[in-house]
Amino acid sequence: MSSPELDPRTAALLKRDPAGLVCAVVQQHDTHEVLMVAWMNDEALARTLATGRATYWSRSRGQLWRKGDTSGHVQHVRKVSLDCDGDALLLEVDQVGAACHTGDRTCFEATTLPLATPTA
Amino acid sequence: MSSPELDPRTAALLKRDPAGLVCAVVQQHDTHEVLMVAWMNDEALARTLATGRATYWSRSRGQLWRKGDTSGHVQHVRKVSLDCDGDALLLEVDQVGAACHTGDRTCFEATTLPLATPTA
Repeated sequence: MSSPELDPRTAALLKRDPAGLVCAVVQQHDTHEVLMVAWMNDEALARTLATGRATYWSRSRGQLWRKGDTSGHVQHVRKVSLDCDGDALLLEVDQVGAACHTGDRTCFEATTLPLATPTA
Repeated sequence: MSSPELDPRTAALLKRDPAGLVCAVVQQHDTHEVLMVAWMNDEALARTLATGRATYWSRSRGQLWRKGDTSGHVQHVRKVSLDCDGDALLLEVDQVGAACHTGDRTCFEATTLPLATPTA
């Protein structure tokens, strides 16, 4: 696969962490479920924008990771938004199958933390 | 304000970054809008769970930050979920007013990045 360059105007908007990454929140475009959180470097973002296939940087494996290449659980990207301070992206996607490697639809299903106080 | 302790069972589930933080995605509980992304250390999470008021760690100011104390734009927390690998939280909240410091309802409204390819 060729390596598209990130548009310099986009690159200039990003506020990367010390590892060169921004946080990507991934949301199913129609149901609005939050599916997962992943990380992108400039190349991952460039590939995502160029191809419409969500591509991340795997911090554990230290390599680019195009979602679905192994699992088949592809994310077709509909919209990418950058937050007000440039360190987080929102990807609205059409998720094929499960987003989570556990087989759950989202990565947030398994563990709910106990709230001590009911809120108003 | 007293400093509640984070439940050791919860603390044991967290996979913190080198700065001791986990990412928190904040979603309006009923409309499912993604409002913002912020960061939590153990104390911020403990206070959030104990009080039902979303409290973060400000990386720029280096201090705890209870959302709404200055702006009035409080977040009443309805549910907190931890993701499958323990490094991201999903807060479902009832957001009073604007989530973004710019006055926008969400932090993701101002900037959409151009997708080169329409997706299937």
